[in-house]
Amino acid sequence: MFEKKAVCLVSGGMDSCVTAAVAHREGFELAFLHADYGQRTLEREKKAFEDIANFYGVKQKLCVNLEYLARIGGSALTDFDIEVPRGQLKRQGIPITYVPFRNANLLAVATSWAEVIGAKSIFIGAVAEDSSGYPDCRQEFYEAFQRVINIGTRPETQIEIRTPIIHLTKADIVRLGVQLGAPLNLTWSCYKREDLACGECDSCLLRLRGFSQAGLTDPIPYAVKEFI
Amino acid sequence: MFEKKAVCLVSGGMDSCVTAAVAHREGFELAFLHADYGQRTLEREKKAFEDIANFYGVKQKLCVNLEYLARIGGSALTDFDIEVPRGQLKRQGIPITYVPFRNANLLAVATSWAEVIGAKSIFIGAVAEDSSGYPDCRQEFYEAFQRVINIGTRPETQIEIRTPIIHLTKADIVRLGVQLGAPLNLTWSCYKREDLACGECDSCLLRLRGFSQAGLTDPIPYAVKEFI
Repeated sequence: MFEKKAVCLVSGGMDSCVTAAVAHREGFELAFLHADYGQRTLEREKKAFEDIANFYGVKQKLCVNLEYLARIGGSALTDFDIEVPRGQLKRQGIPITYVPFRNANLLAVATSWAEVIGAKSIFIGAVAEDSSGYPDCRQEFYEAFQRVINIGTRPETQIEIRTPIIHLTKADIVRLGVQLGAPLNLTWSCYKREDLACGECDSCLLRLRGFSQAGLTDPIPYAVKEFI
Repeated sequence: MFEKKAVCLVSGGMDSCVTAAVAHREGFELAFLHADYGQRTLEREKKAFEDIANFYGVKQKLCVNLEYLARIGGSALTDFDIEVPRGQLKRQGIPITYVPFRNANLLAVATSWAEVIGAKSIFIGAVAEDSSGYPDCRQEFYEAFQRVINIGTRPETQIEIRTPIIHLTKADIVRLGVQLGAPLNLTWSCYKREDLACGECDSCLLRLRGFSQAGLTDPIPYAVKEFI
């Protein structure tokens, strides 16, 4: 029997998989939450989500459709008229793959669910440093959202947002995942393709660089592996 | 030409209609956002939303389906196994019609949309005093969410949450609506029925009491009007 339960936001990518591995190691019963929001690779991500859920024997799963984020638009991840850029990790500012306020939408769903199923923690694989420039991936964003949860739920509800990898580099995340036995081979990070990872989008480049810097080989197949 | 735009959360009820009327009076171009979340009366609310949008000549409308709130459950509004109580305005604590963290979900969608369409304000018809005991209807909840918006959106994005009726009584809201020429005849507040307002649920009772205390007659038809 588990004594505590955690809602884990699991996209199917490496970061959320390692985050779930941290929650698993801490002894939480895992409840997995996945969101489709019209992203290009949603079928492949959904498969990764299911594979990771099976790996951890997760019983409570919730898949939600935030398709309105695609209709709202404003991101290359969901607006297919905007091209996903390749090989431009050194760009400044907010990436064009930023989905406006996405993580607040995800945390709102997670909090509603956590309150109903009695989960005391919400684990989210946000990474502040090298993944982004996304404003909703920073530590202070989660601190601010924590206050909204404290005020906006029932007085007896106690839910803590956990961001265990927020200050890690991708190389650290790879190392931690391997150390925890996380099923990185089941994860999917590519923003562009569903058959083989493209190896060119920001997400592939960051992932490949992470494995490279950790001195390890990424177990998933790539169409192209650019020199990182 | 309008110089400023506001996203108005419009459920179809009286409070959000009067809130939209305030935004209209202040000279905002109105963008109307409506959410279905599996509530019992969603078809009737949607009609009210469309009627109010037509009244104000609203061009930008977004209807989103938050059906996962019904799947998550935990509320008499969305879980049809839980009965909507009648005639119990003096109960203590959080009402059983509380949809866990609903307003955070709504504000998250509204913020995503506002950021993309360039709206500087989000108007929401939350009422702290006599509507509820809902934790996500209090002023401090909106102050906390404002901070999440400030941190979690692009640096150049400036979006302000406006809650113009949060400290009004239902009678004040009725009076303000009449004063602003808001189309209260087009609104729908009942939690239970879609043909005639039931006149018995909390929402009907609060509305009828508001009209009564304002010395006015509610223009919508009721199945029953209990003595308030």
